[in-house]
Amino acid sequence: MVDTVGIVGLGLIGGSLARRLTERGVRVIAWNHRSHPYAQAEADGIFCKSTLSELMDAEPDVVVLCNPLKAMPSILAALAPLMGDHPNTTLTDVGSVKGMVRDQVKAAALGKCYVGAHPMAGNELSGWQAADPHLYDGALWAITVDESTDYRRFLDVAAMITKDVGNRVIVVDDETHDKAAAMISHMPHVVSTALINELVANPDRNIAAALAAGCWRDMTRVSLTDPDRTRAMVEEDSLNVEVLLRRMAARLTDMADQLHAGADGEQDVMGFFAEGDPFRRYKAAVTRAGITAAQAGTATAQQAGTTAAGFPERELAVPEAGWQQTLLFSARRGEAITGFIHPRQAIVQLRPAM
Amino acid sequence: MVDTVGIVGLGLIGGSLARRLTERGVRVIAWNHRSHPYAQAEADGIFCKSTLSELMDAEPDVVVLCNPLKAMPSILAALAPLMGDHPNTTLTDVGSVKGMVRDQVKAAALGKCYVGAHPMAGNELSGWQAADPHLYDGALWAITVDESTDYRRFLDVAAMITKDVGNRVIVVDDETHDKAAAMISHMPHVVSTALINELVANPDRNIAAALAAGCWRDMTRVSLTDPDRTRAMVEEDSLNVEVLLRRMAARLTDMADQLHAGADGEQDVMGFFAEGDPFRRYKAAVTRAGITAAQAGTATAQQAGTTAAGFPERELAVPEAGWQQTLLFSARRGEAITGFIHPRQAIVQLRPAM
Repeated sequence: MVDTVGIVGLGLIGGSLARRLTERGVRVIAWNHRSHPYAQAEADGIFCKSTLSELMDAEPDVVVLCNPLKAMPSILAALAPLMGDHPNTTLTDVGSVKGMVRDQVKAAALGKCYVGAHPMAGNELSGWQAADPHLYDGALWAITVDESTDYRRFLDVAAMITKDVGNRVIVVDDETHDKAAAMISHMPHVVSTALINELVANPDRNIAAALAAGCWRDMTRVSLTDPDRTRAMVEEDSLNVEVLLRRMAARLTDMADQLHAGADGEQDVMGFFAEGDPFRRYKAAVTRAGITAAQAGTATAQQAGTTAAGFPERELAVPEAGWQQTLLFSARRGEAITGFIHPRQAIVQLRPAM
Repeated sequence: MVDTVGIVGLGLIGGSLARRLTERGVRVIAWNHRSHPYAQAEADGIFCKSTLSELMDAEPDVVVLCNPLKAMPSILAALAPLMGDHPNTTLTDVGSVKGMVRDQVKAAALGKCYVGAHPMAGNELSGWQAADPHLYDGALWAITVDESTDYRRFLDVAAMITKDVGNRVIVVDDETHDKAAAMISHMPHVVSTALINELVANPDRNIAAALAAGCWRDMTRVSLTDPDRTRAMVEEDSLNVEVLLRRMAARLTDMADQLHAGADGEQDVMGFFAEGDPFRRYKAAVTRAGITAAQAGTATAQQAGTTAAGFPERELAVPEAGWQQTLLFSARRGEAITGFIHPRQAIVQLRPAM
């Protein structure tokens, strides 16, 4: 379904995607705000263009915006007049917040051709020099849709991810995505930073740091990444992060109250430590399933370009009306799309769920 | 100074210590509440005894209590009458909270012969089967003292750790130790558990878990360890944990307020992310120094039984009056004792400090 993909931005995420798609036989056209990666990218088989207009003239089926979020409004403004001449091209992006990007896309009058996306891939590095097609090994992508999303355009993006990149997909609305990202990344980054702030304020910080071992190292690792990048990420999802920070503060205060109560709070202290058991069981099940999958299908999994071919799969019918809802419910059950038998019949992988 | 060491409890910590001391030429006498590790321990050169009385009859210079904390009162009660016949034997332990253990030691009328200790070593495993002398490679120990601690007994324990185990030592009071442990381990364990509790309460927990990557994995790792063990650890240090939980709750609430204020809170949001910079610089300095040390002295470091022989060292005079204070201030500067030239002249290693 997708012959040609346009990549805007050849940083870590865009460069890795361009290299992976090229390796897997897709024609990739790329534009970067500076041309320094072009010589090496061309050597890798990527067709580099000096303007967005030339990129669009190559008639990409899908254009993936891999530029930094802060460049999004200007890139969209430059693309808007060009997209009008290529009404069949689908626009997507890889931004880590989805509500804000959709608002910007709509403001540029590009809402009709847009489907959001967010690959769960990355590392501490950045830039073309760090680009690596293996960055996407076994990755899951969120595709974000709303009630007006065109199903054909969704299929283009989903097919690119499952067939051409060889990854898995879940389909969610922007709000669900941004709340989930706040839960498992944005809010925890603030918590990690608060931990090191508390240590710095501690009069015995050097003694505490000397005694620190694995727990402290792991819980503060993300506080060491560029604090400006973290700040931007938190501010872009600030409403969701704010709510979760208040909930976390209430949980910590509640636990402090139980500890203060001593023997009277014993039951509640035990309850606090038991409350997370569904997550502990989920992690144990994922680990078990992963081990089984690795034992069962290492060679097969590598051939298929995934790392978890051992998880069971089933078919899922996608209705014409309310397809967004059907796919969201599937994601809530812990399923992920691995491909399509035909446009209205998806294959979903079943993973452990809480 | 130390010829014979008695080890009470051959679990992960005690078994590893017994094996390390034996390997390094110290005579080790051991007792365990069950005799199942004895055959293998004897084969390793450890002299196993069937009663605590027989262990004491072997005239150990230092007895190290490596039993679980919950067994401490009964072990101390059994040891008390035996210690009276061996007034020169020094009693120490490896418990992860120090104030509570000292109270129990005093209740058993053993305060005079006691010096507290806590090795920063361990892993997710437990029991003799997991015992490994390399568990102590490069480890730092806290020795805990109070105003009544006998300096000769402190020296016995410090010499055992630096010369016989080949580790580094910092000297602190119980309160400083327990507050520091709450800061870098006990409180963060509660925070990690609160994170998974929050996820479990999230209606889109499966979507959030599917999107989770390295940040979430690292910040919730310690929540997966046996929650009953974590609960016991938190309750044993509950006063310190309570205070830190309230401070963390205030920090998270404050950040939520700044995010709520939007552009008005921008300066404070930036301040929040800058506040931890001293820790970020400290970590970078430790990493740089560690790399230099590894490059400079790999062979030497291994011969010396330490992993960081490249850090600079200096001598520290230990006065007769107020030695506890002198050593505490040294620890606060980021120094650690690596040995003694004579009883009143220590060698301290200088590490980066905040």
